[in-house]
Amino acid sequence: MVEAAERAQVLVEALPYIKRFHGQTMVVKVGGNAIGERKEETLLDLVLLRYVGMQPVLVHGGGPEITAMSQRLGIQAEFRNGLRVTDRQTMDVVKMVLTGKVSPDLVATLNRLGGQAVGMSGEDGPTVIAEPLDPELGLVGKVVQVNPEPITALLERGYIPVLASIGLGYDGQAYNINADTVAAEVAVALGAAKLILLTDVPGILDSSQRVVTELGRADGRRMLERGEVQGGMIPKLEACLRALDAVPQAHIIDGRQPHSLLLELFTESGVGTMVVR
Amino acid sequence: MVEAAERAQVLVEALPYIKRFHGQTMVVKVGGNAIGERKEETLLDLVLLRYVGMQPVLVHGGGPEITAMSQRLGIQAEFRNGLRVTDRQTMDVVKMVLTGKVSPDLVATLNRLGGQAVGMSGEDGPTVIAEPLDPELGLVGKVVQVNPEPITALLERGYIPVLASIGLGYDGQAYNINADTVAAEVAVALGAAKLILLTDVPGILDSSQRVVTELGRADGRRMLERGEVQGGMIPKLEACLRALDAVPQAHIIDGRQPHSLLLELFTESGVGTMVVR
Amino acid sequence: MVEAAERAQVLVEALPYIKRFHGQTMVVKVGGNAIGERKEETLLDLVLLRYVGMQPVLVHGGGPEITAMSQRLGIQAEFRNGLRVTDRQTMDVVKMVLTGKVSPDLVATLNRLGGQAVGMSGEDGPTVIAEPLDPELGLVGKVVQVNPEPITALLERGYIPVLASIGLGYDGQAYNINADTVAAEVAVALGAAKLILLTDVPGILDSSQRVVTELGRADGRRMLERGEVQGGMIPKLEACLRALDAVPQAHIIDGRQPHSLLLELFTESGVGTMVVR
Amino acid sequence: MVEAAERAQVLVEALPYIKRFHGQTMVVKVGGNAIGERKEETLLDLVLLRYVGMQPVLVHGGGPEITAMSQRLGIQAEFRNGLRVTDRQTMDVVKMVLTGKVSPDLVATLNRLGGQAVGMSGEDGPTVIAEPLDPELGLVGKVVQVNPEPITALLERGYIPVLASIGLGYDGQAYNINADTVAAEVAVALGAAKLILLTDVPGILDSSQRVVTELGRADGRRMLERGEVQGGMIPKLEACLRALDAVPQAHIIDGRQPHSLLLELFTESGVGTMVVR
Amino acid sequence: MVEAAERAQVLVEALPYIKRFHGQTMVVKVGGNAIGERKEETLLDLVLLRYVGMQPVLVHGGGPEITAMSQRLGIQAEFRNGLRVTDRQTMDVVKMVLTGKVSPDLVATLNRLGGQAVGMSGEDGPTVIAEPLDPELGLVGKVVQVNPEPITALLERGYIPVLASIGLGYDGQAYNINADTVAAEVAVALGAAKLILLTDVPGILDSSQRVVTELGRADGRRMLERGEVQGGMIPKLEACLRALDAVPQAHIIDGRQPHSLLLELFTESGVGTMVVR
Amino acid sequence: MVEAAERAQVLVEALPYIKRFHGQTMVVKVGGNAIGERKEETLLDLVLLRYVGMQPVLVHGGGPEITAMSQRLGIQAEFRNGLRVTDRQTMDVVKMVLTGKVSPDLVATLNRLGGQAVGMSGEDGPTVIAEPLDPELGLVGKVVQVNPEPITALLERGYIPVLASIGLGYDGQAYNINADTVAAEVAVALGAAKLILLTDVPGILDSSQRVVTELGRADGRRMLERGEVQGGMIPKLEACLRALDAVPQAHIIDGRQPHSLLLELFTESGVGTMVVR
Repeated sequence: MVEAAERAQVLVEALPYIKRFHGQTMVVKVGGNAIGERKEETLLDLVLLRYVGMQPVLVHGGGPEITAMSQRLGIQAEFRNGLRVTDRQTMDVVKMVLTGKVSPDLVATLNRLGGQAVGMSGEDGPTVIAEPLDPELGLVGKVVQVNPEPITALLERGYIPVLASIGLGYDGQAYNINADTVAAEVAVALGAAKLILLTDVPGILDSSQRVVTELGRADGRRMLERGEVQGGMIPKLEACLRALDAVPQAHIIDGRQPHSLLLELFTESGVGTMVVR
Repeated sequence: MVEAAERAQVLVEALPYIKRFHGQTMVVKVGGNAIGERKEETLLDLVLLRYVGMQPVLVHGGGPEITAMSQRLGIQAEFRNGLRVTDRQTMDVVKMVLTGKVSPDLVATLNRLGGQAVGMSGEDGPTVIAEPLDPELGLVGKVVQVNPEPITALLERGYIPVLASIGLGYDGQAYNINADTVAAEVAVALGAAKLILLTDVPGILDSSQRVVTELGRADGRRMLERGEVQGGMIPKLEACLRALDAVPQAHIIDGRQPHSLLLELFTESGVGTMVVR
Repeated sequence: MVEAAERAQVLVEALPYIKRFHGQTMVVKVGGNAIGERKEETLLDLVLLRYVGMQPVLVHGGGPEITAMSQRLGIQAEFRNGLRVTDRQTMDVVKMVLTGKVSPDLVATLNRLGGQAVGMSGEDGPTVIAEPLDPELGLVGKVVQVNPEPITALLERGYIPVLASIGLGYDGQAYNINADTVAAEVAVALGAAKLILLTDVPGILDSSQRVVTELGRADGRRMLERGEVQGGMIPKLEACLRALDAVPQAHIIDGRQPHSLLLELFTESGVGTMVVR
Repeated sequence: MVEAAERAQVLVEALPYIKRFHGQTMVVKVGGNAIGERKEETLLDLVLLRYVGMQPVLVHGGGPEITAMSQRLGIQAEFRNGLRVTDRQTMDVVKMVLTGKVSPDLVATLNRLGGQAVGMSGEDGPTVIAEPLDPELGLVGKVVQVNPEPITALLERGYIPVLASIGLGYDGQAYNINADTVAAEVAVALGAAKLILLTDVPGILDSSQRVVTELGRADGRRMLERGEVQGGMIPKLEACLRALDAVPQAHIIDGRQPHSLLLELFTESGVGTMVVR
Repeated sequence: MVEAAERAQVLVEALPYIKRFHGQTMVVKVGGNAIGERKEETLLDLVLLRYVGMQPVLVHGGGPEITAMSQRLGIQAEFRNGLRVTDRQTMDVVKMVLTGKVSPDLVATLNRLGGQAVGMSGEDGPTVIAEPLDPELGLVGKVVQVNPEPITALLERGYIPVLASIGLGYDGQAYNINADTVAAEVAVALGAAKLILLTDVPGILDSSQRVVTELGRADGRRMLERGEVQGGMIPKLEACLRALDAVPQAHIIDGRQPHSLLLELFTESGVGTMVVR
Repeated sequence: MVEAAERAQVLVEALPYIKRFHGQTMVVKVGGNAIGERKEETLLDLVLLRYVGMQPVLVHGGGPEITAMSQRLGIQAEFRNGLRVTDRQTMDVVKMVLTGKVSPDLVATLNRLGGQAVGMSGEDGPTVIAEPLDPELGLVGKVVQVNPEPITALLERGYIPVLASIGLGYDGQAYNINADTVAAEVAVALGAAKLILLTDVPGILDSSQRVVTELGRADGRRMLERGEVQGGMIPKLEACLRALDAVPQAHIIDGRQPHSLLLELFTESGVGTMVVR
């Protein structure tokens, strides 16, 4: 139990961080697993960011939920190089799950916790323009362009935008896009101050399995080239490096820790890997 | 084939209607069946309304798609007095279908046709506050309040809002609401100039099965009391009568006719039943 | 008689044009003869342009009316190279006729047809700064500068500006200027999307007396140099070429055809000569 | 010759008046005769008012010029009770003279003196809606309504509006209206601080032919009832009394005196008759 | 030392308070003694309030500093009923000390701590209009009117206004006013959410010398009538009661406790006496 | 005594100057002596400038008052090269006198004369960032940067800012700065049209002791290098030359002459030395 005096002290010590990030946009990406464990804490953190003057944007995917729903509907999931082969019927499931289940869930919880959230997908506006990543993968897309106007319209009115990682192709077709990638592109388009990827690991690990607390751009690229990161961490590190084109700092942090977002933003001791120029 | 001179004449004859409705909000509700047949024409009409200076808002339900998906998922649909008993798992299907399938579909098509659409559900914002209609029906809701701010924010920026008929309860729970009702309440909250319900029938019929072209409020109430309207037409007529509290004219028109929306708005000859004070 | 379905079709087919020109300025010049025949149709077209989101500006001269009034007042008209020698007393007639008769007439008709028009001359503001074209011609002017502010002030408030082709000299003297020239300079100053000159001929004719539907800048210059256009068409073509400095398309169209303005703007089949870069 | 110190003193003594009328609208009406004698001085005064922060609006008639032009065109002038019987051909002359000659003249002079003036007639917008005063007088009108929007649009941009005393009837016809009346109605519609009628007499005279410097509303009405004012002074006094409905002070001042407008506004010693509530 | 997790917890627990007071004005009055002890903490609290979205206004007096400077200048301090008799030379000292020493000190410290502060006195604008309280007291004033415009201009730009408790009389003379009174009147004029008086006592005490944590308006008046509060607490309680005319809550809190302002605003446990309607 | 006609003439002759300087910022610096003699006239002039549409900013020092107060407090004044050695206790006196006495005095007088003035010091905002000029001089500062935002905020609302020549150091310490220098830097930061230094001498004198009415930049520099100006005129001329970086004209005028400010601004005959590029 924290005493009144200490309580005041904590608030006062947060001041320099509040000042530094005042009015700045923070793009936060949550994945299926990370958000699952600490959903309430993480969303409460987002609401707090909003009220102390930052502009958080939440981006999400939802791989596990998509797989589960596909199974219920008797659709066989097929992966190549870790990417879900997305035919038209799978894409329908992706949309239903991300736009019709994960987004509304996040929105309803944010609203209940005192934020004012509005769900969107990249098709809305359209905000995220996509094209096929690889013909063999079907409707898996890559981002061609982000039109941030609908997002900024909502931010200006005080809403927290919640964005599902779906894009609209020039062919009028929806595309399934990696959520880390969407978050990075949105962060660039918005000129965000930070991109923060919430994961279910402690961060990027070095060869001794210790968390790398700070990683320069060149070192990050080298790790990718040398295959020193694996699996789902590859698109995360790529997203961070891409974001650095316009965003000063990108973070991969451990979403399993309670309030890791607040700790990252309001204390000197970071809680994962920070990627910088 | 229309000749150039006649073509010009048609445009000129539309002028008085364009002037009359300039800058005014039109809430258009489409149902599963009506939209199915003439989706492209109807959405093209909406885009045209936007470009000649009106502010269309699209509200939709999606009964048949919900039933189909429920069946695929092995959930038994149960109705009481024509209303879907909505337990928690059914509500999940409702959200997935309306927010994750019907809305994105309408949005993608509007975007392809040249409009700029953004999908929303009543949970976003939240825009539509709901409470249970009848404990026996589970998560079937009625509208307690509409907060039009997110809708007007989008209208002001030139977007066409597409609203799924779902509300958020004070209990943080989503509610399934009749789309005609949502459309009427939204029209009232926005101070719309018209509420237009697109159906798959020619309009309200009198005892001789002829379309009633104009219906006064008192007569409308009498028809309801005397049971002279049945089935799905009951909530439609009730929605029209409710809208009249703030909206001067409400229409029940035949969405199976091509461009029935344009014909209603831009010609003297209406295409269904107009309900007026 | 056009049927309802065709009627809707025509409106829908106008949509791409409405979208393309939304919010853009159209400078339309009418001459004494062209406007005479189809005044109502042409002005109705202008009102329609306004209501579907364009910003029309009407520029006019009034040669025949000036000649008629001069005769009534016993003033001898004298022309050199087709230009009216304008002494002080003739200039008084020019002002009276253009600002006091032609402009108010156009304004009153536009107002009656549902537009909101405001008449101006280049002296107002001043909007058009002029200097003598040729000392032998007296108060015949050429445009030195256009200050578009009074025009844009009216456009922003929803008015249709009606501008008489008179300029104000640095000497405080009014100058009589060719209306095609004024229209071109105003179109440049406003960054218009189109300059449209309504005439009483079908367009620019080639050596076989067929209408040239599209004319490139270089070809236009060559026609002028080689004397392939004559009489009143010379300043019209010069005005079009001048406008191309800032305006993408300039048109010389046949104002004797009903609604030629609408046909030009809302159909693929143009109705005269389009001059392009 | 005024010395530097006295010069400064005069400026400083004007301060209280400048402060009092800062940002306030002054409707000034000039007649044919008054303006003729001291045109430059009066218009210079108007420009000064604009630059020290007031919002002057100039209203004018032009009886003598209309009569002169009618004669040149061989049109017989006919008066009943001092009002010009105005048939259609006379109305054309009225428009040509007021809108095409008197207004442009005032505008050009104001522009030359450093103001930025824009000429308008009541048909523009339309600003002044009129209806027939008396069927026997033809197109002589009375004011039904003033729509001040075009005037305020110009005032807000720093322009001096110059308004010819013509109105537009519901029948699309122009009407000839007494300029004193138009000035009064415009002053009321604008919520002006003062209505100032510049005449060619010293003011309203009492039975001993002395100028009445201040006149209460009730006394003004009594003078009219008892026939103690005659001729052109009748509509002037009526205009002042009408203006008092919304305007605190109305003035009838001697325009033959140089800078009478400045003297009225910037010194304690008025220069004619002030009519007050 | 507070651990990271607790640290996050404290921030999250502040959220409801941050939300409740978002965008609201807080008028905080500091006295000479209270501010002396905990100046840095108190001013840091104010800066924090600003950054989490509130609009703090700081009002101050400076009795002890005035007395000290008067002594240095050999001016005899004289008090009647606890009020400083203020002749012209004393008033000069009051102005010098409050506007020239206390205010700049607070401003410089706030600026150093990361706020952006601007010092003002009630003479600036003028913001506080005063008149003599009692002829025997000389230039001691009471507040006649507060013109909040200069304060709101600064608040809107993100500045923290620091207001010295001096007013300007209609006689052009400065007046020395009780700072509690000024704070209350300013809070009323700004429609503040709270008036907070920082003192060097624990709050209002009851007959058993225990702090009254909450005091209703009627009870507050009764305590004053019955003489149950004494000395400097009398104007404080009067100020609170006056503020209640427009401000929902007024607080008398113990400024000697570190960060008492934060504790009052961000925790459930108040730190003094709250006066409510 | 000036007659009415001459009075009007003077106002009219001021028009070109009023027009030229409309909406432009004028930074006026007054010194202790100059302001003393003609305080009322000078401040009345400032109020007039405001009302005829200029944006005056008043900068002041207060050497004599500081010396007097130092003496009363028994603090020994020490000067090196004409600059007051400023230890911490002297700085306290500087702040008290400038911010607490001279500024409020000017503000109260301006308010009484009909202006709306707000006093500020460079510490407010902070507006003037300073650093030590010379370690031997203690807290004597030079300007590092001017942040004009608080000044423009006040100007936009119609206030006359009154700025004491004090700056805030990065060390949180206040610095005493020459008022001519502050005025020049503020004029540059505001993009002023003129810098006007009111002195108690007729202007810059040439070797024959005649006032130099106009001085080019190069000539001004040469006079400084050759030692042709002495004493307090050195910083004044330096300030003028510095201002020329952004301000077209800088003036050193004789504040002992009544209304010298008005004479400078509103007549062709200047009243001192004008320094130009």
